Amino acid sequence: MSTVYMTATSVDGFIADENNSLDWLFTADGGEAESEAEDHIATAGAILMGAGTYEWITTHEDVEKWPYTAPTWVLTHRELSRIEGDIRFTAADTDEELHALHRKMVESADGRDVWLVGGGGIAADLARLGLLDVVDVSLAPVTLGAGAPLLAGRVGLRPVKVSLAGDFACLRYEVVKG
Amino acid sequence: MSTVYMTATSVDGFIADENNSLDWLFTADGGEAESEAEDHIATAGAILMGAGTYEWITTHEDVEKWPYTAPTWVLTHRELSRIEGDIRFTAADTDEELHALHRKMVESADGRDVWLVGGGGIAADLARLGLLDVVDVSLAPVTLGAGAPLLAGRVGLRPVKVSLAGDFACLRYEVVKG
Repeated sequence: MSTVYMTATSVDGFIADENNSLDWLFTADGGEAESEAEDHIATAGAILMGAGTYEWITTHEDVEKWPYTAPTWVLTHRELSRIEGDIRFTAADTDEELHALHRKMVESADGRDVWLVGGGGIAADLARLGLLDVVDVSLAPVTLGAGAPLLAGRVGLRPVKVSLAGDFACLRYEVVKG
Repeated sequence: MSTVYMTATSVDGFIADENNSLDWLFTADGGEAESEAEDHIATAGAILMGAGTYEWITTHEDVEKWPYTAPTWVLTHRELSRIEGDIRFTAADTDEELHALHRKMVESADGRDVWLVGGGGIAADLARLGLLDVVDVSLAPVTLGAGAPLLAGRVGLRPVKVSLAGDFACLRYEVVKG
């Protein structure tokens, strides 16, 4: 099993624009990549995200219940509105706490992958602790110039696969460790 | 002929790191892409760059004379040290001046491409004025978390080609205009 950071980004590396909007993402032609991504996320054994990503999904997507069946941990210090689904609000302020949370997620995933779906600060922390194995980014065909960073740190990568799906460039990397 | 922004960047969209260093770029395996890029730049009819890129080349590369035969315009407000070659220091502070410079470069290129090789502010200005046709980026296998931006603005793109050269993901886009 692997811990995978799976996200969409602009060509210049932003996962949301300056106004925290993803309109640039959903106007692009994802070809069959979108439905594949939806199928794909069903294979995740556990999902991790930041409060920003959680709030984006619950306020922008037309969801009455949580779209994922895998248990989802949301890193937050705030009270977030709850919707139906297996959602676990938590905080991990120290490296030890993040290690412990990751261990718990790996156990819960029971051999399947652990997915981080946003954001860039958590990805950088996981990579720094040696807990991130794969970075899988789909580049929407746009530059934004500013916004929320893909990955807030220096991480060496090794390309595994490069392909085009609709107008998205899909890049899969292994994280170089040690 | 096209006006092409041709550059290398990190996966998260930085063309230089926070210390204005490119060490992360030159330690990566570019496969045959590097020598191809050198051959390729010989086909450019005119080259444009900012002062930062010029200073990087003249101070970091082991050059006694300018490596390019095409006339090179360097946008700068400062006195820069000169080395042997067809180098033209200039400034373009208004849209009209940038339009005029671009016209002059197109004439000089005489049917060949005009290349912008850095940086991201000039690329954004050219795109805003409808003067940029192609963005050709080679992604080095690393994230940096901070640095000089690939393209300092919002520009719609259409993918033309995606490939892997050594450890670099090579992405070529047409700029969507109008």
